[in-house]
Amino acid sequence: MTERSEFRLTIACPDRMGIVARVAGRIADAEGWITEAAQHTDLEAQWFFMRWVFSLPAGGEAALNRDLAQQALEFDMRWSLSDTRIRPRVVILVSREPHCLTDLLARWRSGEMPMEIPAILSNHRELEEVASCYGIPFEHIPVTPQTREQAFQRLQDSLQALEADTIVLARYMQILPPNLCLQFRERVINIHHSFLPSFVGARPYHQAFARGVKLIGATCHYVTEELDAGPIIEQDVARIRHDDQVGDLVRKGRDVERWVLARGLRYHLEGRVLTHGNKTIVFD
Amino acid sequence: MTERSEFRLTIACPDRMGIVARVAGRIADAEGWITEAAQHTDLEAQWFFMRWVFSLPAGGEAALNRDLAQQALEFDMRWSLSDTRIRPRVVILVSREPHCLTDLLARWRSGEMPMEIPAILSNHRELEEVASCYGIPFEHIPVTPQTREQAFQRLQDSLQALEADTIVLARYMQILPPNLCLQFRERVINIHHSFLPSFVGARPYHQAFARGVKLIGATCHYVTEELDAGPIIEQDVARIRHDDQVGDLVRKGRDVERWVLARGLRYHLEGRVLTHGNKTIVFD
Amino acid sequence: MTERSEFRLTIACPDRMGIVARVAGRIADAEGWITEAAQHTDLEAQWFFMRWVFSLPAGGEAALNRDLAQQALEFDMRWSLSDTRIRPRVVILVSREPHCLTDLLARWRSGEMPMEIPAILSNHRELEEVASCYGIPFEHIPVTPQTREQAFQRLQDSLQALEADTIVLARYMQILPPNLCLQFRERVINIHHSFLPSFVGARPYHQAFARGVKLIGATCHYVTEELDAGPIIEQDVARIRHDDQVGDLVRKGRDVERWVLARGLRYHLEGRVLTHGNKTIVFD
Amino acid sequence: MTERSEFRLTIACPDRMGIVARVAGRIADAEGWITEAAQHTDLEAQWFFMRWVFSLPAGGEAALNRDLAQQALEFDMRWSLSDTRIRPRVVILVSREPHCLTDLLARWRSGEMPMEIPAILSNHRELEEVASCYGIPFEHIPVTPQTREQAFQRLQDSLQALEADTIVLARYMQILPPNLCLQFRERVINIHHSFLPSFVGARPYHQAFARGVKLIGATCHYVTEELDAGPIIEQDVARIRHDDQVGDLVRKGRDVERWVLARGLRYHLEGRVLTHGNKTIVFD
Repeated sequence: MTERSEFRLTIACPDRMGIVARVAGRIADAEGWITEAAQHTDLEAQWFFMRWVFSLPAGGEAALNRDLAQQALEFDMRWSLSDTRIRPRVVILVSREPHCLTDLLARWRSGEMPMEIPAILSNHRELEEVASCYGIPFEHIPVTPQTREQAFQRLQDSLQALEADTIVLARYMQILPPNLCLQFRERVINIHHSFLPSFVGARPYHQAFARGVKLIGATCHYVTEELDAGPIIEQDVARIRHDDQVGDLVRKGRDVERWVLARGLRYHLEGRVLTHGNKTIVFD
Repeated sequence: MTERSEFRLTIACPDRMGIVARVAGRIADAEGWITEAAQHTDLEAQWFFMRWVFSLPAGGEAALNRDLAQQALEFDMRWSLSDTRIRPRVVILVSREPHCLTDLLARWRSGEMPMEIPAILSNHRELEEVASCYGIPFEHIPVTPQTREQAFQRLQDSLQALEADTIVLARYMQILPPNLCLQFRERVINIHHSFLPSFVGARPYHQAFARGVKLIGATCHYVTEELDAGPIIEQDVARIRHDDQVGDLVRKGRDVERWVLARGLRYHLEGRVLTHGNKTIVFD
Repeated sequence: MTERSEFRLTIACPDRMGIVARVAGRIADAEGWITEAAQHTDLEAQWFFMRWVFSLPAGGEAALNRDLAQQALEFDMRWSLSDTRIRPRVVILVSREPHCLTDLLARWRSGEMPMEIPAILSNHRELEEVASCYGIPFEHIPVTPQTREQAFQRLQDSLQALEADTIVLARYMQILPPNLCLQFRERVINIHHSFLPSFVGARPYHQAFARGVKLIGATCHYVTEELDAGPIIEQDVARIRHDDQVGDLVRKGRDVERWVLARGLRYHLEGRVLTHGNKTIVFD
Repeated sequence: MTERSEFRLTIACPDRMGIVARVAGRIADAEGWITEAAQHTDLEAQWFFMRWVFSLPAGGEAALNRDLAQQALEFDMRWSLSDTRIRPRVVILVSREPHCLTDLLARWRSGEMPMEIPAILSNHRELEEVASCYGIPFEHIPVTPQTREQAFQRLQDSLQALEADTIVLARYMQILPPNLCLQFRERVINIHHSFLPSFVGARPYHQAFARGVKLIGATCHYVTEELDAGPIIEQDVARIRHDDQVGDLVRKGRDVERWVLARGLRYHLEGRVLTHGNKTIVFD
């Protein structure tokens, strides 16, 4: 049997009759064998979304790429065809809190996160040792109110040099400048430690404690220029009790942050997240 | 063996050394046998809360009541001693949505809600038949912008005539006048169909849909003069997906509303909810 | 614009290249507009499953039916094309416990369960009044050890006369005879009050209490000749605590039973459940 | 103000009238200030359980210890008074799977696990590097069918030399010999990767996959001589879908195992777990 490779195709376009038949026809022409398929039609927006995974005979993607490009014009498609063996380069930005970083690194080492980690960047030195334990380069880029502009220029240069595909803010605690948000649109993933839209901004656990809520949450979202307002990828909550102090909220919240970020990032890496306006379609 | 009756004691007071010993001593003097006990110390507010359930020999509560009254002065206690056989009189207010009402009635008939329901009041007639199926009096008190004041006067009169202990707003969809909120302070329980403090006010499912959250919620809280801002008793959430439309949120939300209201109301009826400022202690 | 009707197509067949293209082609030929689509490939069993929903121009289903029948032969398909406006006839069997029945009826009346309920059958009379409140015929078919055979013959006759598509055992507490299980294969839905395969058989809450588990569960499954061993459609759990007695497990369990049965039945009614061997594929 | 220290008292004894008053009296005599209190009465077994945390003036515990010892005789109490600053010595046993170990170490470093870790013992060398990253001694004690007896003798000697209070089997994958189970009764904590009592023994994820359950679970329990049958401390579950293969169950299960083990161990370390027969009381 011929050598086959696995590809992933995502498409978003205005909905119309016959899209599935046309795309499936192209893939059949290319001798593609579909193993995963998920579609969604937003009836209100009249928009169509799909994510398919299939294998192709060696070299078959060139022709398929041409076919799809042609069809994309006709159907006004936003589309992407990726070889699933190619692992995105993910640069992780951290400050002092280790829990999200150690969690991502443990998952990465276990093989469950399909990514390369070319470097960990931080405005502090506390987590250098963690990076070193996992054999990952660590770069210290301090940020002070005075040096903010240069620091972010340096950060941007580093990201470029590292050929970053995706940036993860693993409790980075700094607000990225708008041009960086724009340059990496839908490729900067943040974990916010509240159930957005509740408790936007600083110290959400203190806000939650003051309001007396019975559940705390975390939100994984794409970063946009507006603080904590980008498309939400994943959320979850944990139950708290009347005897939980702010410190307990922080402790319980760390668990929620870790698993929400891990799930959200994995969805992103596996091409499961499509966006439309300020909302996401997540083919989980 | 002597006949014994079960009582429930709740106490809230400034924290100090020896409270438990003193109260336990009083109960031991009265030959009380403790079967449930829960305490909480708010270290920040330096406030003490407890809920104990115990049996007493027949007639023993009179002396205990005197002892506790004396001690309450010394310790600056807010306290309550109740015979657990006495079931609070709960008046349920509804509009047109049946799901919370039918759920409460089914639970009440199964014996899991320790309450009497002297009547169901509504600004519409749609749920009269439901009340009739469960053999509960139904009173129609229409509310229009023009008749609002008289309507709420009539409502207040009915509540008085019905000797209501607790009022449940089971999707009543009307804002109670401030004097009613004050008169029934910490005895009006509302179910709000969002995970407060997100999506205060009208049409929370539409708000949630527009923001693209991944979980929807419901909140059971005591009603205060400020809309949707009273002490939270219970909350829960349900997961939604990208293919859920507003109608699906409403459907999934009905389940969350029902179980959050049922749990919150049961906590209240069993004397498990104490308040401090705008927060609740729930001895669940 | 022409009048269009909505149809649902489910297919299960050995996996091979090009199935999606072929089926999508047929539907495109019939001028079908796909609004929902879900597929699954069981890589181990090499089996393909799909559920599509689409609209067709008036009268278009006849030609599509012919096309699909032809293709089914070629691809060895088990398939079904249904008009989504046609609501299955669901006969509910109960004993004395009302909670699952009242829950299903409330959901049915709210419009969230796409079914007709031609009758409620019971071996007891306790729930006759509930049926009457919802205006549904009730038939009392007593079952005793002596009359078991005749009783089930009468039950079978009733089901036939009622033209039942699906049977729901809403805490029916009787074991159906094997011939009935066979006749209604994958159309008898039971709710078992444990997290199967734990606590098969009688008194599962007592078993759970004795073992000291920290969560109790419920399982919605298709009934087969082997007790509590059929394909599982849906499961869920609730947390219990050390102070929960068997009665509390029963109370908390009622909630889990209700929502697991409601979800499982809705999946079935909407054609979301396909089976393969003793397992289900649920396109939720 | 005098220096005060924090103590924790747990008691289990046959239930009778006046226990709380008597114990509270002793603590009040010792000028104890109670900050946490939880009690439970098992009405069926007629047994009483409590866990109290309080502060005492410097040196006050000696007298209290004498008082309690005296009272213990009278009330037939099993009791324990501990200085909460003293952190138990926990020896972690692992094989090749890192996820539970790295999780416990990250939590330990963050300060949320009140324990010392004198050593990590393993029958393999794979996790030596992890131990080294956290600066914890690692001992390799290989176990083969032939050397099993000597290996466990060596393990027992190490545990003695390390003055282990508690042993955690963090996916150790070896069955401890009965004498070790007895010696460390209620001090060996295992994480089993199923929702017990389902899927006892080997390869529970394969068993779960074969049965087609819709949730997988993990169970943290005390180890007894009978495999996977000891008192359950904590359990939790995760939802799986029809497209999850065994590998996905393993991946999702890792998360459940980690958080169930972490919660169960923390309950144990904080003296929140009391046992009665084969069941636990967990004052969470």
